[in-house]
Parts: sequence; structure tokens; C-alpha cells
Amino acid sequence: MIFHGLKGITCTETAISHIDGDNGQLIYRGYDINYLTKNHTFVEVAYLLWFGELPNQQELNWLTNELKARRVLSDSTKQLIKLLPEDMDMMSVMSTVIASLNTATFNQMTEIEQSMMLTAIMPSIIGYRKSVQKNYVIDEKITEDLNHIEYFLHMLTDKKPEPTHVKALDTYMILTIEHGLNASTFSSRVTASTESDMVAAVTSAIGTMKGPLHGGAPTGVLDLLEEVASSQNSVQLIEQKINSGEKLMGFGHRVYKTTDPRAIALKEKLIDMKGNDEWLDLAMNVEEITIDALNRLKLGRGIYTNVEFYAAAIMKAIDMDPALFTPTFTSSRVVGWTTHVMEQAENNVIFRPQSTYIGKFLTHV
Amino acid sequence: MIFHGLKGITCTETAISHIDGDNGQLIYRGYDINYLTKNHTFVEVAYLLWFGELPNQQELNWLTNELKARRVLSDSTKQLIKLLPEDMDMMSVMSTVIASLNTATFNQMTEIEQSMMLTAIMPSIIGYRKSVQKNYVIDEKITEDLNHIEYFLHMLTDKKPEPTHVKALDTYMILTIEHGLNASTFSSRVTASTESDMVAAVTSAIGTMKGPLHGGAPTGVLDLLEEVASSQNSVQLIEQKINSGEKLMGFGHRVYKTTDPRAIALKEKLIDMKGNDEWLDLAMNVEEITIDALNRLKLGRGIYTNVEFYAAAIMKAIDMDPALFTPTFTSSRVVGWTTHVMEQAENNVIFRPQSTYIGKFLTHV
Repeated sequence: MIFHGLKGITCTETAISHIDGDNGQLIYRGYDINYLTKNHTFVEVAYLLWFGELPNQQELNWLTNELKARRVLSDSTKQLIKLLPEDMDMMSVMSTVIASLNTATFNQMTEIEQSMMLTAIMPSIIGYRKSVQKNYVIDEKITEDLNHIEYFLHMLTDKKPEPTHVKALDTYMILTIEHGLNASTFSSRVTASTESDMVAAVTSAIGTMKGPLHGGAPTGVLDLLEEVASSQNSVQLIEQKINSGEKLMGFGHRVYKTTDPRAIALKEKLIDMKGNDEWLDLAMNVEEITIDALNRLKLGRGIYTNVEFYAAAIMKAIDMDPALFTPTFTSSRVVGWTTHVMEQAENNVIFRPQSTYIGKFLTHV
Repeated sequence: MIFHGLKGITCTETAISHIDGDNGQLIYRGYDINYLTKNHTFVEVAYLLWFGELPNQQELNWLTNELKARRVLSDSTKQLIKLLPEDMDMMSVMSTVIASLNTATFNQMTEIEQSMMLTAIMPSIIGYRKSVQKNYVIDEKITEDLNHIEYFLHMLTDKKPEPTHVKALDTYMILTIEHGLNASTFSSRVTASTESDMVAAVTSAIGTMKGPLHGGAPTGVLDLLEEVASSQNSVQLIEQKINSGEKLMGFGHRVYKTTDPRAIALKEKLIDMKGNDEWLDLAMNVEEITIDALNRLKLGRGIYTNVEFYAAAIMKAIDMDPALFTPTFTSSRVVGWTTHVMEQAENNVIFRPQSTYIGKFLTHV
């Protein structure tokens, strides 16, 4: 029997997260994500993943300061970012820069220190590359007091971050921080399983995340929203897409058989921001039309809105360059990856599945 | 049921290679490896993997010239190599440089062109980094006429390659060019399964190969050989190691229940080179002692010499820096990785296995 894509195969135990696809529930270290987005911030949830417990105020201050201290790019990393070819996408820039951190000095740090460093540096890589491309200088006096998400928003947009936008991005990043053995996280564990470095494992995960079947999804949703925006008859357009068998970006998920719990939490934020942006209204409208059409045309097959759909709408509202969607997803998920790498090391078995040979056999030998 | 390490799980069909662990046979595209090492060269076998058939003379000339043309480093790649920190190992240099190739221009090439480029450039990365570290200049007039393996040997040692050594290295590289779904190859397919780029897939594979449980093995064999060389009583030393449960590098393989067929082919080359080097004799001696001790102390458990054991001995004979063992393994296996990436694309399913949650559930939410 061949398990293509390893569908249905359980390959590890984990104490990091629990996905209940039938009931539409997602739990990080015991906490339902709805509880976390309502009561905690991204940095607190990162602490929860890495240490297994939510931080008290002192612990939160410590992590906030650690992330601030570790986000500073070295001169040689800045030189490297400048040197990379112009026709290189941001994911590949991140992959190259992260790979370049794999030094003896870096690997002497504890795994938690490495995890904090890899998380802290992501916004800086994105922001610095962008400043080189667009030829502006990041004002470090403005950015030095910002916390991790404020800083990230500043790096993404080169604008003073607005509190509502910070809150929306923080929510998005909590909801994408971790999601079991998706392909990128799985690839980080496969790399870690040879007892390779955390940097190597995270580099694998970034390369895996880059693929359009994984981290690429939000960009596809934007295309859909834009297509609908310029269409005369959005109901007809959506029905045509469904009838021609086209994959509708932003709808359906391999795991969740009911509504994606991350989509519900994000939708609540989207409602909070209503009136701010025409795209929010459009997104709400497209969702309604699509779910309605899916129910009419494919009776009994429950397809619901997934996290990428609302993510794209929110990121449009905060005026993020679409090319930075997947890098943003990467910048939250790195917390999950590093946590999985540490867990893999606790009870490691090298990954080595099998294949069935269907090629020829030559008898001359 | 949890399949740790995915042991025993078949996750794809393949027409690239067939490993018969019970009978100690390894086949590439229908050809037994013993036939290939006796009758063909590394470049011919690379052609076989990529195109499915051995090349005729014209096709071989074409590939030889393609590899020559594609091994030239760009100025910006040279700058990048110079810029990377001094305390960075060669595998991480390779990983970073390969990641830096992920540009729109590169990705517009055909997959075969990308595969040739990634294979051709490996020796150049190693050689140039070494020349920067040791402060010498590669004489491009000497190297320009060399074929792929001659060039590689020159890059590894900065010496005019001797024909016997070229033949030994060529044999080693044929025998390590491909080996089913080992962890690095598997990681390249996991990354490719999101429809990410070939560069990203090969970068994952390099990072996975770096781990001591995988590509790191030959270095461990050298340590063993050196420990034996400086010991008063080699039989006692080996027995102590076995009794204390220490893993003996160079012996045993997860797949082969009988002798590793690659070890047999390499041993033949090693016998050919006898008299050249004290290490060859030592290696033969250590093998004999170890197999004898294993048979005495662990009756009924057949452990045989694996490919890394003789590989280490051969590389010692050709005076290769031990730090370049895994990079050399990488430089042959890249052909297998690129072939698997192309095969994965033919019938792709994204890899997404499952995990079992063993963490807590909190009821306050």
C-alpha cells in the first residue's frame, strides 16, 4: 500500500498543538486558540509554545527584550542582503539569510536562544531588503522602542503602525504560529531528524513554505478578490469557477471538515475593522456568494472559508505588499518550526520512509 | 499506531532506484551498481538518472560540456562566499550559496538545466571557499580542461589529479549518487511537494545531509580509524566499544541486512589501490577485527561494513580534508535529489502526515 502524501499516517507524538478537524478546534499547549487571541499577544503565545506555559509579566518583559536585542542585523548580514540578486523573491532572501546564520558561534547558543534569534530577525530581514529595493533608510530611532509586532508592521509598510492594525496583525500571527505537521513543519522535523542544526531545519521549512500549495495561498485569494472586484456579475463568476472545477483559493482545507477555527477568529477581527476599507466589505461579500454557490452546486459537500481568505483581506486592509504575505506567514510560523525542532530532538528517530520500484530491470548484468 | 521515522511506510512509487536490502542489491534505472561502476563513469550515470538511459558518445560529450560551462561561479557568488563568516562549515556554505541561486532567472531554466547547474557548481563552491580560507588562487588555466571528476578532485585538494585517484573518486561518487528515500532525498521531495523550487528542495536536502546521523557518518569512521591507529590493542578497543553499546561508525545499515553492495564495490577499488597508503591497510585490518568481534559478541545479529567505512579509507588515501567528506557526498547525491524532485512533480501529492496529541487540555476556555 502506498500512502501518497503520507495522508492518514501518524509519525510522531506531540505536545505542541492539537487539531480537531471534525469539531473545528485548534489547541496550542492546552489552550484553545479563541481563548488565546482574545486574551493574549503573539509574544505571549510564542512563550507558551517554547516554554509550555504562558508567561507572567516578568517573563513577558524578558522575552520582549530578548526579541528586541536579537533583531539587530549584523553588518555582514546587511552586506549579504544587498548582494543578493534583484530578481530574487523575499522568501528566497529569507532562506539565504537564515542559511547564512549557520556558524559555530550561532550553534553554540541554546536552542531557545536560537529560536528567539530566528524569530526576532525575520522582520528585520524583510524590512532591510525592502529598504534596499525601494532605496530608503529605516529610521532606527523610531523603531527601537517598538515591540515585536509593532516593529514587524513598521518593517512591512515603512509607516508608523496604527494600534488597530497592530492588533489585527498580532491576531493573524497568533493564528498562524503553529498548525501540526503541515508540509513546512514536517520538513523542519525531517531535517532535524538527522541531528542537523536548527538553522538548517528552519531553512528547509522556509523553502517548503515557499511552494504555492502551502504558504503561497494568500496571494491566490487576493487574485480572486481582485477578479471579483472588476467583474460585472460576481455570482456568475464564482459559479463559473466552481463549475469548471477551478480550485477556489481561500476555501476548503484538508484538515478541517467544518469551519476553520482560525477563520472564525480572524473574521471577528475583520468585522471590528469594518468601514476602514472597501476590501473588507468585498471579502465579506465574496465569502457569502461563494459559500452560497458551493452549497447550491455541490450539495452535501461542506466546504468552508479557510484562514488564508480572511488573512488576505486583513493584509489588504493594512496595505501590505502582496509579495510579503508568505514572508509574514513565515515570520509567525517560525515559532512553531523551532518548537517542533526542539520536540523532535527529545525523542528522535531519523525519517526514512520507503518507495516502491516501478522502473525496469535489466538482465544483462 | 505511530510510525516513528516512517519506518516501513511506503509513500511513493519511483522509477529511479531499487534497493533490495535482503539480497544486498542496488539498482539505478534498471542497472545493477556493480555493472555501472565497472563500465561507466559518474557523468554517464548522472545522465542515466536524469534521462532514464545511458548516453551515447555524443550525448556524453554534450553533458560533459554542459557541466563544464555551468560550473563557472558568477562574481556575486564569489563575493557571497568571501562574505560568509569564517566559523561556518562547508555544508552551511554550500547551503547558503545554493539558496542564493533562487532567482527568477534561474527558475526560468528547465528542470534539467537547473539540475546540471546545481551539480556542476558544487565543486566550484567547495574549491573557491577553500581557496579563500587558505589564501591561494585557483589556476583556471589548469582546471578549464578537466572533466567533472578531475575538476572536483582538483577543487578538493588543489593538486593535479592522479588518474588512480580520479577513478576511485568517480567510483565513490557513482555509488553515492542515489539511494532511495534516505532522509535528505526525502526532505527534497517534501519541499518539492508544495510545488516549491528545485533550489529550495536541494537546499533542504543539504541541510538534512549535514546531520551526523546521515551525511556525517564518514567523519566518524575516520575518528575510529585514527583511534585504532593510536591504540596498543585494537582487538580490545573494538570489543570495549561493542560491549559498552557504542555505535560503531562504518558498520551496519538500516536497509541492508547483508553486506552493503556499495561497500563491496568500493572494497574492490580499495584493494586495487593497496600499497599506496598505510590507511588502506589499517582500514582492512579494522574491518576484519570488527566483523570478527561483532560475530563473537552478538551472535546471530548480522552487521556488515557499510559504504561510509571504505569511503573514509579511500578519501584518506586521496588526502582529502575530513571536513570535505560530507560536501563530497553532497556533490554526488545532488544528482539523485534533482532526479527525485523531477519525479515528485510528475505525480505530486503534498506531504502532510499526522501527529498524536499527548499534551494537556485546559477546561477554562
